[in-house]
Amino acid sequence: MSVGTYWLWNGKQWLSEFVWPTADRALHYGDGLFETLRFNHLGEAPLWFFHAERLQQGLLALGFPVTSFNLIEQAFAALPKELRQSGGKLLISRGVSERGYAPAENPEIQLLWHAFTAPEWGVDRFPQGFKADFSAVKLAPQPLLAGVKHLNRLEQVLIRSRFVEGCQEMVVCDNIGNVVEGCMSNLFILKDSKLYTPKIETCGVNGVIRRWLLENEQVNVTRLLPEDLLTAEALFFCNSLNGIVPVSQLAERQYSLKYQGWQTILNLQQKLEALFC
Amino acid sequence: MSVGTYWLWNGKQWLSEFVWPTADRALHYGDGLFETLRFNHLGEAPLWFFHAERLQQGLLALGFPVTSFNLIEQAFAALPKELRQSGGKLLISRGVSERGYAPAENPEIQLLWHAFTAPEWGVDRFPQGFKADFSAVKLAPQPLLAGVKHLNRLEQVLIRSRFVEGCQEMVVCDNIGNVVEGCMSNLFILKDSKLYTPKIETCGVNGVIRRWLLENEQVNVTRLLPEDLLTAEALFFCNSLNGIVPVSQLAERQYSLKYQGWQTILNLQQKLEALFC
Repeated sequence: MSVGTYWLWNGKQWLSEFVWPTADRALHYGDGLFETLRFNHLGEAPLWFFHAERLQQGLLALGFPVTSFNLIEQAFAALPKELRQSGGKLLISRGVSERGYAPAENPEIQLLWHAFTAPEWGVDRFPQGFKADFSAVKLAPQPLLAGVKHLNRLEQVLIRSRFVEGCQEMVVCDNIGNVVEGCMSNLFILKDSKLYTPKIETCGVNGVIRRWLLENEQVNVTRLLPEDLLTAEALFFCNSLNGIVPVSQLAERQYSLKYQGWQTILNLQQKLEALFC
Repeated sequence: MSVGTYWLWNGKQWLSEFVWPTADRALHYGDGLFETLRFNHLGEAPLWFFHAERLQQGLLALGFPVTSFNLIEQAFAALPKELRQSGGKLLISRGVSERGYAPAENPEIQLLWHAFTAPEWGVDRFPQGFKADFSAVKLAPQPLLAGVKHLNRLEQVLIRSRFVEGCQEMVVCDNIGNVVEGCMSNLFILKDSKLYTPKIETCGVNGVIRRWLLENEQVNVTRLLPEDLLTAEALFFCNSLNGIVPVSQLAERQYSLKYQGWQTILNLQQKLEALFC
């Protein structure tokens, strides 16, 4: 399998490339988007629809040219099969401009594809679930960018750098104390056998698995506080690469594998995994 | 004069370079800092102290290795004179890491230098002052990054993309309505012949000219609301490349050149310009 980094040349052809223009706006300002995808063994991305949907919202939020999405979709379709057999990261930059914050009037967007062999999926790596804690880093509310997977990720770098020892994820709140998500996942809880997940309105990433769940399950999208997590029957994190992973411990609270909630999560996990068989 | 882009090779030597590694964390996460500098005709940066001070604060905020600042200072001193005769942008990245938000344990930071011929300085380009208005974009409060000139600049890209026609700067508030700064400058007002500037505590960039003014003048650092600007005698924006530029109009309010406040600003402007003669 071809693992490596590829650049979309001339809007058409993926060429192996390990360098990027120094004048690029993704490098200077984080002026772009990304998606991390998982493929099945046929090289298909069963959840491409959800990635595409978020990309369109992100392109709109950043004011990229309206034609950008077509270019991205064609470029994705043109990825040779050997570059989409496990995991991949698609990075979209607004390209170069004059010096300064103003984007070029007619930017030539640039695409980078990083094909990688994902570690084993979450279902196999974390059968015992995640240990998690509450992050001391709070997300800043910026409604203009909420939900979008853009390239300004310093908050996640700060959160990741401060992981409590032994934890595989951290619960992150906004600056007024509402639970938003994990560092690299979305978050759901089970309470009275019902699913709840926080609103993504002022900050946070509107994840692919989150939206797949909203589409396929009865989920209450609501305000959640830390105590709601601590008093839940069960909770889980989800993202593209890890899938759905239950939480065995959050701060001092343990969530028993024997409870019904845990089994409900494993059922959702299997339903998701079935898409990738 | 050599205008162009240079990369610090092996922590020692500046080599002409137009490409950057695709695995770099500045490209993927905006995991780095930058400074934009102005030089005098001898190739000196009279305000380097203030740039260095902010870099040290930024390196600390992002958790870069403690040795990073020495490397930067030596690299800056090693810049050939022909690369520091007008303007320059120094970009500092945490370098490469494994995939994911976690920085490498011992990152090799990377330096990029972009030497450019600055347009005429603000004092010559904008003798009539700036026209400005209030931006509809609000800055998100993130105290962990406030003041730091980091590479997550999507808010500035959004503000710059929404400049009101005919304006050279925009006044930007935080999400609770306090005035913070301009899109690419800090902001001061004159009221009863006294200088005031907003606190930079939860968001905004702690600019070089701002700190030079705080060091050299009597300035009240305080909470400012939009109405404080509209009822001020005079106001001005300041940054490294433009220096100090008075505002001739903010929204509907005009600030007369005949008022004493305007003359006070021109005096500060001349004092700053004298450093670059």
